Amino acid sequence: MILCRVVGTVVATHRCDDIPGARYLLVQATDMKGQGRTGYHVALDPLGAGPGELVLLSRGSSARQTESSHQKPVDAIVAGIVDQVDAHGHAVYRK
Amino acid sequence: MILCRVVGTVVATHRCDDIPGARYLLVQATDMKGQGRTGYHVALDPLGAGPGELVLLSRGSSARQTESSHQKPVDAIVAGIVDQVDAHGHAVYRK
Amino acid sequence: MILCRVVGTVVATHRCDDIPGARYLLVQATDMKGQGRTGYHVALDPLGAGPGELVLLSRGSSARQTESSHQKPVDAIVAGIVDQVDAHGHAVYRK
Amino acid sequence: MILCRVVGTVVATHRCDDIPGARYLLVQATDMKGQGRTGYHVALDPLGAGPGELVLLSRGSSARQTESSHQKPVDAIVAGIVDQVDAHGHAVYRK
Amino acid sequence: MILCRVVGTVVATHRCDDIPGARYLLVQATDMKGQGRTGYHVALDPLGAGPGELVLLSRGSSARQTESSHQKPVDAIVAGIVDQVDAHGHAVYRK
Repeated sequence: MILCRVVGTVVATHRCDDIPGARYLLVQATDMKGQGRTGYHVALDPLGAGPGELVLLSRGSSARQTESSHQKPVDAIVAGIVDQVDAHGHAVYRK
Repeated sequence: MILCRVVGTVVATHRCDDIPGARYLLVQATDMKGQGRTGYHVALDPLGAGPGELVLLSRGSSARQTESSHQKPVDAIVAGIVDQVDAHGHAVYRK
Repeated sequence: MILCRVVGTVVATHRCDDIPGARYLLVQATDMKGQGRTGYHVALDPLGAGPGELVLLSRGSSARQTESSHQKPVDAIVAGIVDQVDAHGHAVYRK
Repeated sequence: MILCRVVGTVVATHRCDDIPGARYLLVQATDMKGQGRTGYHVALDPLGAGPGELVLLSRGSSARQTESSHQKPVDAIVAGIVDQVDAHGHAVYRK
Repeated sequence: MILCRVVGTVVATHRCDDIPGARYLLVQATDMKGQGRTGYHVALDPLGAGPGELVLLSRGSSARQTESSHQKPVDAIVAGIVDQVDAHGHAVYRK
C-alpha cells in the first residue's frame, strides 16, 4: 500500500461497476511522512474518508477484496484512514 | 483507476479474446484535471465512450470484471465515463 | 494493452510452463502510431504473429486467459494482431 | 520480490481489512546489497520483523497468500526476513 | 516476461511461504540481448538455474502457477532458462 492524501472526488454516472452509491475519491500519493504530492489515483472509498485525510491506498486485485468491490472493475481502494506514521522511532505524521 | 482521454480506436481482427463486436479504444492518460496527455493505453470499451470524452481506466485483473471481458485476455477497460472532477472544493473538470 | 512490434524470438527449452510447442516472441513497445521502440517484453504468442507485425500485448493475469496459457506461469501474451490504429479521426497505422 | 528495510509503522484504526491485530510496517526499498533507500511501501507483517531488519517484500495478489491476509484488501506483505544475500560469489549482506 | 541474469542468492529462513527447500535467486534485468544490468528482483527458482545464466522472469500472480509456488506469497519466478534470443533475423544471445 502507499500513503495518499484525499484531494477531491470523481463523478461518473455511466459506469461498469453497478455499485449503488459508489464513491470515487481523487487522491494524491505522498511521501512516507504524508507530505508532498506526486501522482494521482481515482479510488473507491468504502470508508468515508474526508477531504485532506491521509489514507492507505491498495491497488490491483486487492482492491476487490471488500463487500462492495467484490467482482467489480475497480483497481484502487481506500483500505484505511491513517492515524499515525512512525519512522526511525519518531511520529512523522499524526492525524 | 486513472483518468484518460479517448483519442481513437484500434482494430485487430485476429485476436485471442473471442469477444463478438469488441471495441478497443486508444486512450491517453491525463492529469487530475483531465488535461495534458502522457502515456497511451488500448482499452476494451463496454460503455460506448465517444472521441474526446474523459474516462476512468481500470487495469489488470479488474479489467475482466464485466460480462463481456470475463475470462478474456484483456488488461485494461473503460470503467466509467467521467461527468465531473472536483479538487480542493472546486470543479476542475465538467463534461 | 499496449502496442508492440515483433522483433524476434526467445528459445528456452527448460521451462516451467509445460506448454507443448509454446512460442515466445521478443516484442518492443511502440508509441500509439506503432512507431519508435522502447522497452522490450517476452510474450507467449498463440496467434502466430510474424516478424515486424504490430501486436496488442496483454500483461499480468490476463495473459493466462487463453486455452494454451491457462494456469501457466506466463505474464505477457500477444492478444491481437493490429490491422489499423485511428487517432483524432485519421488512420495513423495500417497493416 | 524486492529487498526492503523496515523503517517504521503505520497505524490506521479505521480499515477495510478486518484483520484483528494487523501490523502494518513502513519499509523502504534497498539496492541488492540491502543498502540505500528509494521508494517506500506500507506492508502487512505476519512475521514480526523488527526495526532496521532487511525483509523480502511481495506485492500484488501474492500478498494475499497467507492465512491472515487471505481475501483481504492488502497488496504488500513482508514475505521473509533476510539472513544473507550473496552476489557474484560473495556475501554482500549478512544479518 | 523479461530477461534476467542470475547474479546470486537470497537466504531467508523465516518466511511465510512454507515451501520446503525453496531457493530464491537474485537476478538482474538485462536488455533484449541479455546484456547490461538494470533493476534486480528476488525470484523463486524451481528450475535450478546456475550463476550467470540468462533466465525468463515471470512476475505477479503468474509466479504462482507452478506446483511449488501454488497459493504461496511469491510474486516472481524463474519461468525458463534461455537458450537463444533472435532479433531482426540474427542470434543476439546464445547460451
